[in-house]
Amino acid sequence: MSIKDPKPLDLSGERLAATYRIQADDEAAALGRAHTICLEQTVEFPAALIPNDAIRQQIVGTVAHLATADQGGWEVVIRYPVEAAGGELTQLINLLFGNISLQPGVRLLDFSLPESVLAEVRGPRFGVDGLRDLLDVHGRPLLCTALKPMGLSAPALADLAYELALGGIDLIKDDHGLANQPFSPFQERIEHCAEAVRRANQATGRRSLYLPNVTASAMDILERAVAARDAGAGGLLFCPGLAGLDAMRMLADDDDLGLPILSHPAFLGGLAVDARTGLSHRVLYGRLNRLAGADAAIFPHFGGRFAYSEAECRDIVDGCSDAMGQLAPIFPVPAGGMTLERVPELRRFYGADSVLLIGGDLHAGDGGLVARAGRFRELAGQAVG
Amino acid sequence: MSIKDPKPLDLSGERLAATYRIQADDEAAALGRAHTICLEQTVEFPAALIPNDAIRQQIVGTVAHLATADQGGWEVVIRYPVEAAGGELTQLINLLFGNISLQPGVRLLDFSLPESVLAEVRGPRFGVDGLRDLLDVHGRPLLCTALKPMGLSAPALADLAYELALGGIDLIKDDHGLANQPFSPFQERIEHCAEAVRRANQATGRRSLYLPNVTASAMDILERAVAARDAGAGGLLFCPGLAGLDAMRMLADDDDLGLPILSHPAFLGGLAVDARTGLSHRVLYGRLNRLAGADAAIFPHFGGRFAYSEAECRDIVDGCSDAMGQLAPIFPVPAGGMTLERVPELRRFYGADSVLLIGGDLHAGDGGLVARAGRFRELAGQAVG
Repeated sequence: MSIKDPKPLDLSGERLAATYRIQADDEAAALGRAHTICLEQTVEFPAALIPNDAIRQQIVGTVAHLATADQGGWEVVIRYPVEAAGGELTQLINLLFGNISLQPGVRLLDFSLPESVLAEVRGPRFGVDGLRDLLDVHGRPLLCTALKPMGLSAPALADLAYELALGGIDLIKDDHGLANQPFSPFQERIEHCAEAVRRANQATGRRSLYLPNVTASAMDILERAVAARDAGAGGLLFCPGLAGLDAMRMLADDDDLGLPILSHPAFLGGLAVDARTGLSHRVLYGRLNRLAGADAAIFPHFGGRFAYSEAECRDIVDGCSDAMGQLAPIFPVPAGGMTLERVPELRRFYGADSVLLIGGDLHAGDGGLVARAGRFRELAGQAVG
Repeated sequence: MSIKDPKPLDLSGERLAATYRIQADDEAAALGRAHTICLEQTVEFPAALIPNDAIRQQIVGTVAHLATADQGGWEVVIRYPVEAAGGELTQLINLLFGNISLQPGVRLLDFSLPESVLAEVRGPRFGVDGLRDLLDVHGRPLLCTALKPMGLSAPALADLAYELALGGIDLIKDDHGLANQPFSPFQERIEHCAEAVRRANQATGRRSLYLPNVTASAMDILERAVAARDAGAGGLLFCPGLAGLDAMRMLADDDDLGLPILSHPAFLGGLAVDARTGLSHRVLYGRLNRLAGADAAIFPHFGGRFAYSEAECRDIVDGCSDAMGQLAPIFPVPAGGMTLERVPELRRFYGADSVLLIGGDLHAGDGGLVARAGRFRELAGQAVG
């Protein structure tokens, strides 16, 4: 093999680092798998056939660390040239976990990007501090709920939105299953709901936000977000698993929009379920959402309708809040069958810097939605020992 | 609970059907899980709190069938109202597998859409017959390879493209890791490579196509596709897992582009790996790619660097080719460490209506790329017993 390249490679030498957990019978096998990943994720070419030393030395990933992992298997750190990510989120994700997503026994536990890369990323426009300032709510968890059930008309959903804002819910989002269905068309819904929340805010003096779901066909996403802003929506709900992480980044980076974004894990959630494959909770909910500009990330709290563990929820908090260059920390949003009864426990586990999301349970009991929302607020605001 | 809806629900009654495999201890538990899915994927609301009978009867999914599954667990068919999908691919995927992607022990095995829904979907612009006509290749598998390794400059990649086209490869795609990196910028690469393939076609009289990778930031996808067409690229490579299934549909539906699309499973592949969760192979590689307009779907053939089984590869072929309204069948593209040696086996397993993708192995040996590509062509064209 002798490809003569008229433009020889000359990279900066700067590298980003990815930590994987891999399954292997012994250290030698683990190292072998690690070297395979170094090739698979970059040149995707047999080592012996790589046409020149520049590519071998500058493009192929390198194994920086290998050790037994606490949860079994081996933990390996692989370093990739920053240029391989090409300055795009889509290619960065491909570099970190594109082809090896197809292999069993490889999990992306974490990654870290050098300052030179992070400096080019805006990340969350608001983050924890910005969203608090926008709402003027400090020192307690934010309260969130969803407009549902699917099947209600826009005016009926707006009635709910009004009562929920009156009761003191900070973030009133569309259920993520509300799109542009005939029973509640997008444009009609955003107009009614934004108006209802505005009216309630006038009554309460608070700044509750309505966040419509702008997950949509590729050509419609931006248009819906602009329509939402024009109708007076205070934020956006988006499902990156359905419409792409970079589409969320596009919304977050849009200075004309300037709206906070709540990220929902529909479709993507399964990537974290099996501990031996996929993405760690910190990466899926924390790192990727922050890179893609979400200000808050919804995930299933342990003990609800879904299956994450306490440790995995802690991992999400870490991914939402730990150091990541100049990228702001974002709110973890534990959800999935949460009830008023569990608010003190949620408050204890997540502390004040969280968004608590309660859906159906606000509609339970006989007290009515406004009172129930008020009770949610009271419980979330209480100091916990 | 008494939400009075001023616009009562009035749906068509038409439903689409999803088949899941669920894990449960006995039939009663399986039925309970099935009913939970009926709620989770639609109203996401406790049954007792659903505000009116119209929503309960018209929106909530219904269990149409429950039986023990061959592979263990239970197979259940759930029917959802077509209106819940709102005429959008993003919401259809959410309806089929949004929230329940977060639960262990639920796998989407298959789904079927009524004619009324499929009639609104264009699907693959070319499909098997259209791509054969475009290439004027009939009666044998199409041949495909990737330009790599990453790190080569645009002129060096173009030299490879020239030799590969000269040797008779039908579809010459960018490696899916080639994006817009400084060592091979997108615009420079497509100009060089498209010109090289054109030149080779003039020499051979054949119609080999160059398919650049247009997976990119949300705002750049369409622009790159247009640039690719303008440069003379004959098709597109796209990774829906990185940039969204609906972004691929957008490219496929664009009459001004009119280019065939090859779909690559980067990042998404893990959704099929664990047989108890995620998506079946037929759904992930067949159904979704066809809905989103791919003309050919790359996946890891069994016995390569990845881990799918023979039965799973057969399931992919079925999903690529079985009846799906007016949607054309598409090519399965077995790949992942394939070698010339395995071509007869691939030909036997997939038959003529397949695309065989060999990457690194075309570069092995001493005969040179043109001869090696010619040998690939010879092997693929041979009748098999």
